Parts: sequence; C-alpha cells; structure tokens
Amino acid sequence: MGDGESAEGSVWEAAQWAALRNLNNLCAIIDINRLGQSQPTMLQWDLDVYRARWEAFGWQALLVDGHSIPDLIAAFETAAQVSDRPTIVLARTLKGKGLIGIEGLEHWHGKALDKPTAAKVVAELESQLTGASHQWKPNLPTAGRSISQTKTTDRATSGGKPPYALGGKEVATRKGFADSLTALANADPRIVVLDGDVENSTYTEEFEKVAPHRFLEGYIAEQNIIGMAMGLAARGKVPFASLFSCFVTRAYDFIRLAAISHLNIKIIGTHCGVSIGEDGPTQMGLEDLAMSCAEPDFTVLYPADGTSAWKATALIAEHTGPCYLRIGRPNSPILYGPDEQFAIGRCKVLKQSGRDKALVVAAGITVFEALTAYDQLQKEGISVRIIDLFSVQPLDRDELIASARATGGIVITVEDHYAHGGLGDAVLSALAEERVGAYKLAIREIPHSGKPEQLIEKFGISSGHIVNAVKSALR
Amino acid sequence: MGDGESAEGSVWEAAQWAALRNLNNLCAIIDINRLGQSQPTMLQWDLDVYRARWEAFGWQALLVDGHSIPDLIAAFETAAQVSDRPTIVLARTLKGKGLIGIEGLEHWHGKALDKPTAAKVVAELESQLTGASHQWKPNLPTAGRSISQTKTTDRATSGGKPPYALGGKEVATRKGFADSLTALANADPRIVVLDGDVENSTYTEEFEKVAPHRFLEGYIAEQNIIGMAMGLAARGKVPFASLFSCFVTRAYDFIRLAAISHLNIKIIGTHCGVSIGEDGPTQMGLEDLAMSCAEPDFTVLYPADGTSAWKATALIAEHTGPCYLRIGRPNSPILYGPDEQFAIGRCKVLKQSGRDKALVVAAGITVFEALTAYDQLQKEGISVRIIDLFSVQPLDRDELIASARATGGIVITVEDHYAHGGLGDAVLSALAEERVGAYKLAIREIPHSGKPEQLIEKFGISSGHIVNAVKSALR
Repeated sequence: MGDGESAEGSVWEAAQWAALRNLNNLCAIIDINRLGQSQPTMLQWDLDVYRARWEAFGWQALLVDGHSIPDLIAAFETAAQVSDRPTIVLARTLKGKGLIGIEGLEHWHGKALDKPTAAKVVAELESQLTGASHQWKPNLPTAGRSISQTKTTDRATSGGKPPYALGGKEVATRKGFADSLTALANADPRIVVLDGDVENSTYTEEFEKVAPHRFLEGYIAEQNIIGMAMGLAARGKVPFASLFSCFVTRAYDFIRLAAISHLNIKIIGTHCGVSIGEDGPTQMGLEDLAMSCAEPDFTVLYPADGTSAWKATALIAEHTGPCYLRIGRPNSPILYGPDEQFAIGRCKVLKQSGRDKALVVAAGITVFEALTAYDQLQKEGISVRIIDLFSVQPLDRDELIASARATGGIVITVEDHYAHGGLGDAVLSALAEERVGAYKLAIREIPHSGKPEQLIEKFGISSGHIVNAVKSALR
Repeated sequence: MGDGESAEGSVWEAAQWAALRNLNNLCAIIDINRLGQSQPTMLQWDLDVYRARWEAFGWQALLVDGHSIPDLIAAFETAAQVSDRPTIVLARTLKGKGLIGIEGLEHWHGKALDKPTAAKVVAELESQLTGASHQWKPNLPTAGRSISQTKTTDRATSGGKPPYALGGKEVATRKGFADSLTALANADPRIVVLDGDVENSTYTEEFEKVAPHRFLEGYIAEQNIIGMAMGLAARGKVPFASLFSCFVTRAYDFIRLAAISHLNIKIIGTHCGVSIGEDGPTQMGLEDLAMSCAEPDFTVLYPADGTSAWKATALIAEHTGPCYLRIGRPNSPILYGPDEQFAIGRCKVLKQSGRDKALVVAAGITVFEALTAYDQLQKEGISVRIIDLFSVQPLDRDELIASARATGGIVITVEDHYAHGGLGDAVLSALAEERVGAYKLAIREIPHSGKPEQLIEKFGISSGHIVNAVKSALR
C-alpha cells in the first residue's frame, strides 16, 4: 500500500485483526516514498515510528531499501519463515526514482512530463537497462488448501423450509434471517459469517454454534469486516457480513468498491428504522436503502416477516453478486406460509379487488401498518390494493405498473426510512412514465427515542397516516 | 471511549493526528472492562498491548484502576502536566462493578434485571454509599483562548463578487469554490479548512496561503477529518472539509451523526461523476447525492459554473446547519454574471418560452448538455424549458411544479450520478402528486475509464440522449 494511504483507519482495523489471528501467511508492503499527492506524508521517512506502530499492532516489521531487489527478496523470505504473525515490509523509496529532475521532489503526483523532459528521462531509464547478473527464480507457493467452490444443487431450497406457521407465534425478521442462515450452514459450505460484535442481537450466534470454523468475529471495525468479506468473496466463499444497519454506513467506501468489483458479498443490516424504538437515532439505520440501492450492482431485499426473511436469506445466498438485506428488530406476525415462493425482483400483492381506489406499497414493518389501514378503510367502504415490495432493487416494475393502472394511478408508499433514496423513490422511479399521483410517507426529520409504536405514529408512517393519505388522495 | 469501540479505525486516525500536532491539552480515557456486547473484546485486559499501541502512536499512556477515584485524579493531573503530547488513560474496570452476580460476567450488555435481582442489587449499592473522607476540589480550567463567534454582517457578500466574466475563460467549479473560500478567508474568521491530501486538486491550497493557521491538513483519513470538523463546528467555527466526493463515503457514519446533532459543518465533495474521465470508477463520486440528501438535515447544493460555485460557497458559509457542496472537475463556460443572485432552495430557469413542450432539469455538467440539446431541439422546432437545479435539497418545489405544469407535465432529468437517490429522484419526489410523465437520465451501470465526453455519451447523459428522451416523450 502507499505510505499516505496507511493513515486510513481501515488499515489499522485490518492490522489488529491479522495479528489477533496470527496470520503468518500475510505479508504487506508499504511503499514509503515520503510524498503524498499534495505534500509530504505525516511520517515522511520516520521508519522507526512506522516500525514501532506495526510491532505494537503485533506484526513482524522489516525495514528495507525498496529499490534493492536482493533486500526485498530477503525480506520476503524472512516473512515466509515467521510462524506466529503477519509481516510488514517497510520499503523506503524515492518517488520517481531514476527520473532526472523529478526524483524525490514534490508536485509531480499524477502529472505528465512535457515532451523534451520525457525524452531525456526515457533515455536515462533505458541506459539503466543492463541484464541482471543473477538469475533469480521465485519460490512459487505450493498449492495451499483448496478453495471450496461447492456446487450445491437446488440451493434455493437447500436450507429446507421456514419453520414458522401462519398465525403462529410472532417472529422478528432478524430471527428469520439467522434461522435460515443456520439452516444453510450445512447445506452450503461456501457460506462464511462475519460479525461486528452483535451476534447476540442478530442471532448469528446460532450459526456460530453450528459452524464455528466458518464464523469470524470482526469486533467493532466495520470497514475491515466488509474488507474481509470482499476477500472471501474473491476466493469463492459466500460471505455474510452481519451488522446493525446504522453501522453499515461505516463501510460505505468498501461497499462502493465491492459494487465496482461485482463481488459476491452479502451485507445484512439489522435493526433498521425508527421501529427499533428506545435506543434512539444514533442506532437507527435510516439511510441504508439510499446507500445500497445507489450502487447499480446491488440486489436489495427487505422482508416483512419471518418466513420472507428466511427465504430472502436463501435467495441472496444463491444469487451471484453483491446483496444487501434490510432486517428489522421487532417481532411481527407471520404473513406467509412455508410454501410461499419468493424471488428477487418480485413483490407480493397482499390485498386486491376489482374496486381498488388506491395502491399502497410498503415493506418491512410498514406492511403491517398498511394491512391495519386496509381493514380501517374497508370499514369505510374504501378498497385499496396492498403490495409488500420485498425486493427493493431490482423491483417488480411490471406488477407495480399494472397495480398502479388498476387503482387509478393513486399510489401511496410508506417506509421506515428517510424520505430521500428509500423505497418510495424506487417506486416513484419505476412508475415515472406512468403519470401517477404518488404520496410518499417516510421519516422526514431526525427522530428520537420512544416506544416503536409511538415513533411510527409521530414520524408519520402509521396505519392512521396511511388512512389519511389515501383519503386525502381520493378527495 | 469503550474498549470494544477502540478497535474502530477512526480512533487510530484521531490518535495519529493528535500526536502529530502535539495536542498536550487532549486527554482520552478508555474504559477497559474486557467485555463487548456479545463477547470479550479483542484485547480483553491485555493492558500492556494497549499501552504499547498508544505509545507507538505518540501518546503518553497511563494505566490505572478505573474504580479508584484517587488513581484517576492522579492520572488526570499527570495528563495536565505533559507538555508535548496527548494522554490516554487506560482504566481497567469491571463491567457491572458492585452488582452481585453480574460483576465481570458476560451476557449482561443492555439487559434489564428482573425485579427481585434488582432489589438485591440496589440494596447492595446503597450500602456502599458512605460519605467520602476526602473533600476533593476539581482544578477548574482557566479560561483558554476564546472561541471567536464573529458576527460578520452581510456575510453573503463579504467575500466580494465572483471574478468570472460571462463568455470569458472557462473555469472549473472546484476553482470557483476555492476562489470563493479564499476570498472569504479574511471576511469570515470563523472559517477553518480541512483537507484530505487533495488541496492541489481542490485548490484549497489557495486558502492555506492566505490563512495558514486556519488550514488543517488531515491527510488520508477522512473519518477523522469529518470528526474534527464536527468538533470545530461544536466550538463555533465554520469548518469546510474538502475531499474528493468518492472518498466522502469513508465518513458516512460521521455525516449521519453530524446530521443527528445538526452541526454546522460544510462538506465539499469534488471530482464528482463520470465527467472526471480517465481516473476510472474508483475515483468517481456517483452516490454522494444519495448519501447526503438522505440526511434530512443536510442542505445540498450542486453548482454548474464558476460563478454559481462561488456563490454556493458563500451561501453555505452563512447558512447555519450541515451542508454538502457537490463540485466537478472539468472546466466549463461561465453561465452567470457576477451579479446573479442565488439562494438555497431556488433553481435557475435558463430557457423558457410560451411554447415549451417539455421540462429538462439538470445540474452541474449536465446543464451544458441540456443547453446543447436545447439548441438542437430549437433547430427542429421543439421548444423546451431548461432548469439548472442548483439546490438539490431543499429544492425549488414551486418553480418545478409551475414549470412542469407549463410544459404539459413532461419532465426529463439528467445527472452525472447513479440513478437511485440522485437529483432525478429528488425532482420526481417534488412532483410526485403532479401526475407528470418523467424520464430520468442517469448513470445506470458501473462506469469505466475514458475521456469525459466519451463517458457522458456512453453512460447516457449527453445532449444527444436528452434530445432523444424529449422526442421519445413527445411521441
């Protein structure tokens, strides 16, 4: 890595974890050329400080002349021999080494040379092209443990059926997710779970019990957790990184890069929205749909009940590509029977009739608010169609358009997410050309602590608000 | 801070910066109780490792019994006396100290006690309430340097007028931003600039020349840069944190918390979109509007030319509250004269007539694509209205609604941003109840490297694409 770059906190998250797990097969190199893009780096060539920091973080630190091939080879051989820790090679270099008039100087970062200077510099470099006196042969690594690329057949059902009964005990979507993941542990050996010290809240501790060697505790260091997931995905694993949705924001640059690389990572953001209740706004993930759906590569699912959470988990396990699963905290009734079929890109129409006057699109906890609003409106003689969106990206454009047309183009969206970049915007975008009239219910200010039902009411996404929005739209 | 929390990379970003600047008036405390939420922390009670790390990062480290008030007082007095570095107090504690049957045990994080246990525990705690034998008096700090809360009058014009002439030399919005900031340096002493080693690309190096003591180089550690900005804002400064827009993603959790705290920070994201060209997708900020507009507290401006970038900078300096300014890389013509008035929440109608058949809403570089499309469509006898959105949040709902109504409800949005959560979604949302037909042009896949004009064409946001969208909508 670059010396300037090694100031990133994510580097130290990775450093501490690698040392904790004694990763003796890991060797990192810092190119210490003293110069950042705009000015000298924080530590310049203070190699003793670099060494002290890496040693304190549990690494073997080797100082070398980064322009000496024999020194580098010696360092890599030393790194290969250490048995109990990773190695950092701290390579002192000159930026632009060998380029006359540029070597070691500032203000040349990312700049092209003018033609005469370039000609001089290239000639000088060519004059240095002498054959090496020593024919070095690399020690190629012997084949390590092979990466399991298990082809499970019929993966969608390989975890079995969800165990929740329609009308049975209430279940949280976080429980549905974790139960499904645990059921998949044996069925799909590619799955690895990474946790950010929340396994007792996300219930991934159940997976750890079943498959301890495929459970990695990442502690409170979310960038490194997603970074490790990216590496695991690159090596054929199916990593599930499970975090509170609010703290997924810590790793947004990593998520962006996972999208660019189309890596097969699965990010689970639990405890979304104001419906977590008392813990307050710092603990509420209210921008996670904006963040994840912005990345064009990401599949984003948002199940409403235990059964659909179970199925969503199986769906993203078998889907190749980056996925985000939005998961809630509260218990909720079971909406779907164990044989209900779910698919990425498909929604569920929960209520419909030939007399529907409006379409209500919900997801997660607001599905239950929508169903309550349905009952209320029925009593008043107003039929509405209710959709559980389930798949926020891609979304079920055909069904949304058909339903919007069938309901006179009056659409109400309701979500436990900030108003910008959530499912309302996704639905409006899908219906953009349809000339619908849309009414978006979402969280429009910074929320605070309270009981879930109080917050759902106060911040405008309750059944009462849905009823009012429908009536106001029909006026 | 908590011991588990000290695994966050942002902690080490802050640690290295505090040591670099010899912040001898900073004393941090880690409560080392060995237990995270779900399990023991990475380092448990290995205080020697804690000490070695903090000392290697340049801090004075003091190990104390966190339950001994005299020990803590002695540590804080030692911290006050050190003259050349910050101090970390590593306080060894027992979680749940003094609670019978709970002290030092796992699985009690965030859990309530049952009533009989609570009664026992409270009784035990009350029995410990003996009067202190020693009456300690804190050494209150003497009044330090006062925080300047300068009330500059007429701040909007205090930086003077933008120096760019209509039809004059092309200017990049990053130049307009930095020129304005530099002009404000003397006019508004509250302003402090923080840089992420990009001052030679964002031109904030000009501010540094004028006000070196109000320029803080944060190096490549974006979480700490935003963290420092938050602290400065809390102390009455107006911090401008200037980063490449892609790397603003590194600090999303900090941005979220700045929104929750309604802090007066100004984040500048430069080099947005595919229009940066050759540097490729890792360097393109394409989700920054999704990220910033999702936060309900944030004001988000996106100027198209040098003059409006100048004015936007002055506007966010005088506005109280968190702001994000989206800034581009390429040079572009000057659209507005020095006396043009801009306001947060107001757009600019650049072209209009009584015969407009569609409304095109653009911002940043796509304003110029829209104007080219306008000329092309005029030649074909099709009049369109062109809006430079300028203020993405809040947006000019009244003008957008009036313009949409005047153009038959046909709206084309075009943006150098991913399709979800950008200005298109903001406009669709503002027009949601209007039953318009909207056509959103945006970046819909992971882009790659190329010349800016090639990428604008290939990824669907060029003048040609706008012309086609208008014609297709009118068919």
